[in-house]
Amino acid sequence: MLEARLAQASVLKRTLDAIKDLVSDANLDCDDNGLKLQSMDQAHVALVALALRSNAFEPYRCDRNINLGMSLGSLSKIIKCAGNDDVVTLKAEDNKDKIHIMLEAPNNDRLSEYSLKLMDIDAEHYGIPETEYDATVRMSSVEFQRICRDLLVLSESMTIETTKEGVRFSADGDIGAGSVTLKQGGSVDAENKETATQVELNEPVTLTFSLKYLANFTKATPLSDVVYLSMSSDQPLLVEYRIEDIGYIRYYLAPKIGDAN
Amino acid sequence: MLEARLAQASVLKRTLDAIKDLVSDANLDCDDNGLKLQSMDQAHVALVALALRSNAFEPYRCDRNINLGMSLGSLSKIIKCAGNDDVVTLKAEDNKDKIHIMLEAPNNDRLSEYSLKLMDIDAEHYGIPETEYDATVRMSSVEFQRICRDLLVLSESMTIETTKEGVRFSADGDIGAGSVTLKQGGSVDAENKETATQVELNEPVTLTFSLKYLANFTKATPLSDVVYLSMSSDQPLLVEYRIEDIGYIRYYLAPKIGDAN
Amino acid sequence: MLEARLAQASVLKRTLDAIKDLVSDANLDCDDNGLKLQSMDQAHVALVALALRSNAFEPYRCDRNINLGMSLGSLSKIIKCAGNDDVVTLKAEDNKDKIHIMLEAPNNDRLSEYSLKLMDIDAEHYGIPETEYDATVRMSSVEFQRICRDLLVLSESMTIETTKEGVRFSADGDIGAGSVTLKQGGSVDAENKETATQVELNEPVTLTFSLKYLANFTKATPLSDVVYLSMSSDQPLLVEYRIEDIGYIRYYLAPKIGDAN
Repeated sequence: MLEARLAQASVLKRTLDAIKDLVSDANLDCDDNGLKLQSMDQAHVALVALALRSNAFEPYRCDRNINLGMSLGSLSKIIKCAGNDDVVTLKAEDNKDKIHIMLEAPNNDRLSEYSLKLMDIDAEHYGIPETEYDATVRMSSVEFQRICRDLLVLSESMTIETTKEGVRFSADGDIGAGSVTLKQGGSVDAENKETATQVELNEPVTLTFSLKYLANFTKATPLSDVVYLSMSSDQPLLVEYRIEDIGYIRYYLAPKIGDAN
Repeated sequence: MLEARLAQASVLKRTLDAIKDLVSDANLDCDDNGLKLQSMDQAHVALVALALRSNAFEPYRCDRNINLGMSLGSLSKIIKCAGNDDVVTLKAEDNKDKIHIMLEAPNNDRLSEYSLKLMDIDAEHYGIPETEYDATVRMSSVEFQRICRDLLVLSESMTIETTKEGVRFSADGDIGAGSVTLKQGGSVDAENKETATQVELNEPVTLTFSLKYLANFTKATPLSDVVYLSMSSDQPLLVEYRIEDIGYIRYYLAPKIGDAN
Repeated sequence: MLEARLAQASVLKRTLDAIKDLVSDANLDCDDNGLKLQSMDQAHVALVALALRSNAFEPYRCDRNINLGMSLGSLSKIIKCAGNDDVVTLKAEDNKDKIHIMLEAPNNDRLSEYSLKLMDIDAEHYGIPETEYDATVRMSSVEFQRICRDLLVLSESMTIETTKEGVRFSADGDIGAGSVTLKQGGSVDAENKETATQVELNEPVTLTFSLKYLANFTKATPLSDVVYLSMSSDQPLLVEYRIEDIGYIRYYLAPKIGDAN
């Protein structure tokens, strides 16, 4: 049996917003450590991994490992019914075909109860090796979102180039070309020094990715002020949003190869 | 001849917004007491009744009863041209084929004059008996709007159940089920105690209604902080929005019967 | 070679927004005096003339006259990538097929560089005689935008009538008729006396224009608080937005004749 109570429904709302367009149906894997979800996107191009740690919930109770297969779109629709300050509780009994979602307003005068039908989902599990990356960029998540949106005007692909001096995003298309360069240590948002650009480099890396996918990943922007881009040659890019004190969303995307632009 | 001057055009704007999608063409019946409109919706399922009392207007003059048939969509388009603080005056002469609408800005430096063509509308009049209801719920209109919108995600029908403890709205559909329970005396909006939930009960009632229609009625939400839901077994539900010092909009909707869910 | 640096990218953004839906491809004519663009709209009904004076730029350098043919839609997409406080620099070398656009954030930590492909555009030049107009209306640009939008509900044409007392805009259509009258000296916006209506009159003028075009011209509204409407019988209307200290956008539109309404 699972019972997990989260003080702020808004976190769950944003988490679902960040993945529901990539992954329509998936298993929520629940165990002692918390809730996990791992799935390829519908086109089998990108991998999404979500973790919400048990200590983010109060209380959290999960007696036995349990996999809850569900439509993330439907779950998102229900969680959207929560006010941002509502408390949300997820409940599932062993071997039942429903998950229960309770939404409580802070003053206790309104109680919403939903149940969502579960489904069997044939999920492959992908071992994700913990690799050391040649380059990791830590930058403003809002700026990354903006760069993806801006360069999408020009092309379907974006090249990310890391050097000691900073990071350069570029795109080349039919109407012209464009690039955005962020300086090492530079602050895009003058009011939030926390999001200053930091490039950690073992080796310079230049890789090209599908901009449509990158732009899709940036739906996680409301979850964190910063985003981490980790790259190695010929390895999938890792785009990570850390949800403070709660967990993370990680997206993996293989680089484009050859002259595919 | 009719001449009716309303100090705040915004009230008329909102009133038309609340009914124009249900009723496309209707007669505005004008007499000594004020303006009235009564019409079934286009699908002949719901009944809309609007009253704007003569003392809401200053001046109000109506020598003889006069029925002005018009397109509410066209009238709404014209009234939308008014600023919220504009003064609006409606004028119609006997046996003419036009209604005149004057919009005056508060400082008098702009004057807009419109005329709208009238039409003959064959309207049946429905006698609405003043019935005593088994249960009447007085609640926040914004909360009612939200509940309709939320449960519409799950189903096309909503069941309303009144008890001494409060009122429960529920819906059951393909992806799952949901319910929202409001406690007797509870305040959904902590900052507006005026909208606390009040259930007056002669007898508990449980009835099911088309959610599409209920959601449509909530377009009247901007007209009033509270909404009244009055129910009796096997009687049409009355959804009433009282427009302070001016009049009301009432919607009537028959319950669904049998297992129609 | 052209090099033109503008402290506020927002001006260029708004300028392109004001013309790109009327003119898809055009030559930007650069000389010592600044940047100019003149083009008929796609349907060859209206003429658009844009001027940005050299002293609006710092620095401004243009060694030789140069005509840069480009897609205004594509340029607009690129300029939209600028933050409102970004500095924008346009650069083009003689006989090259690209224009370069540099966007610099105020704190210098982000640099965006775009290039846009140029194209050969066969442009006719229209001599626009400096005429003296019978009537010129100076009025709030926001109010003019609103009047066009409001009357568009009724008709595809709008008649503008100037008298010593003020200016009257009217439209007549299938569902009815409407007019808006602004008094000489009247202030539509109580908080901005600068935009008071002023009619300068040599002779009263009454002319009718395509409302669709007038509404399109009002996309320039964000560039200036006031708009100038200059008219003479049987002459094209001039709708002018002056961009303070920088230049102007002028739209010319021939009146409708006969009973064309």
